Amino acid sequence: MMILRSSPPSPFGRKVEIAASIVGLRGEIEVVTADPIDPNDPLRRQNPLGKIPVLILEDETAVFDSRVIIEYFDMRAGGNVLIPSEPHARLETLTASALADGILDAAILQIYEQRFRAPEGRSQKWLSYQAEKVARGLAAFAAGPPTGRRDAAHIGLACVLGYLDLRFAGAWRAEHPSLVAWLDSFAAEVPAFEVTRAQKR
Amino acid sequence: MMILRSSPPSPFGRKVEIAASIVGLRGEIEVVTADPIDPNDPLRRQNPLGKIPVLILEDETAVFDSRVIIEYFDMRAGGNVLIPSEPHARLETLTASALADGILDAAILQIYEQRFRAPEGRSQKWLSYQAEKVARGLAAFAAGPPTGRRDAAHIGLACVLGYLDLRFAGAWRAEHPSLVAWLDSFAAEVPAFEVTRAQKR
Repeated sequence: MMILRSSPPSPFGRKVEIAASIVGLRGEIEVVTADPIDPNDPLRRQNPLGKIPVLILEDETAVFDSRVIIEYFDMRAGGNVLIPSEPHARLETLTASALADGILDAAILQIYEQRFRAPEGRSQKWLSYQAEKVARGLAAFAAGPPTGRRDAAHIGLACVLGYLDLRFAGAWRAEHPSLVAWLDSFAAEVPAFEVTRAQKR
Repeated sequence: MMILRSSPPSPFGRKVEIAASIVGLRGEIEVVTADPIDPNDPLRRQNPLGKIPVLILEDETAVFDSRVIIEYFDMRAGGNVLIPSEPHARLETLTASALADGILDAAILQIYEQRFRAPEGRSQKWLSYQAEKVARGLAAFAAGPPTGRRDAAHIGLACVLGYLDLRFAGAWRAEHPSLVAWLDSFAAEVPAFEVTRAQKR
């Protein structure tokens, strides 16, 4: 068995679980919840950055971050499944995946602002700077969402939208009805999306 | 010509410039300085995240982030140059590259704390949380630095150390003499490292 250190609300962990399902590897992975804030969690030995997800292979190799884990699943599945092999398509999928990850980073930094700081220490300038990245990124995806076979770019966008539902009350839905339809279609085709939905805490 | 939107102090932009030099593409790239803070810089149309670096290809395709650009250079060079093709070696290089990028992200968040916040709004808890990621990441690299042919992992670590020299007064040097020797060796073999050294402002 492989071990996935993750946490249910993590959008990056969710990406990995969905990717594993698509390539048929989910049954070979035990998910062990990790707490990135707890210094005693072995996570920091598995990934010095203390970030989730980390995939521990059968030979104990630790693989991170989520993009690398997804590329590993793709290699293990023989390639050209989650990431296209053809150079032009590959570049498009990788750039769209980077855009999705960047939106998630900017969304998470807004959440950390609440977790790490008292209200009087929060910076509206910083929060706006990050919120604008999310808004521009969503607008770009709305203008040109991933199409064709479900790959890493689709997984990335689906987990962005799922995270905005979880932590930002789905405010994106009113602005981008085309992405609502896109996500409904993704969820209908990829059952792992609903299976990995986290409960709001 | 390709266009690289970057900025001299950016460690992610430096990675890309060094990678371009190693594969012999540096002469086909014009570097055009970008200002991520300026809303009128076309950067935000080239990358909705407003982050550097972005590579604009001859056909105007915008490629980001730095890891994707480096993979593009590797593909354009025929593969197996900056990122090994053999699966085990590839996984090792990709994970080490992710570790380097994660150290950079944690270092940059400490710098942003000064740029975006007045002294009374800074969080020691947040700064320590990020500083510990940098410290653990460096310790991991000191315990097992990239060896063999100069690839994306080497470039990543070199740009981490260069950024810590630029912004953190090289405090890592006293703690990790083995990495000082490693960086000297990298710089001796890869002239682009010194060529891309930013001046402290």
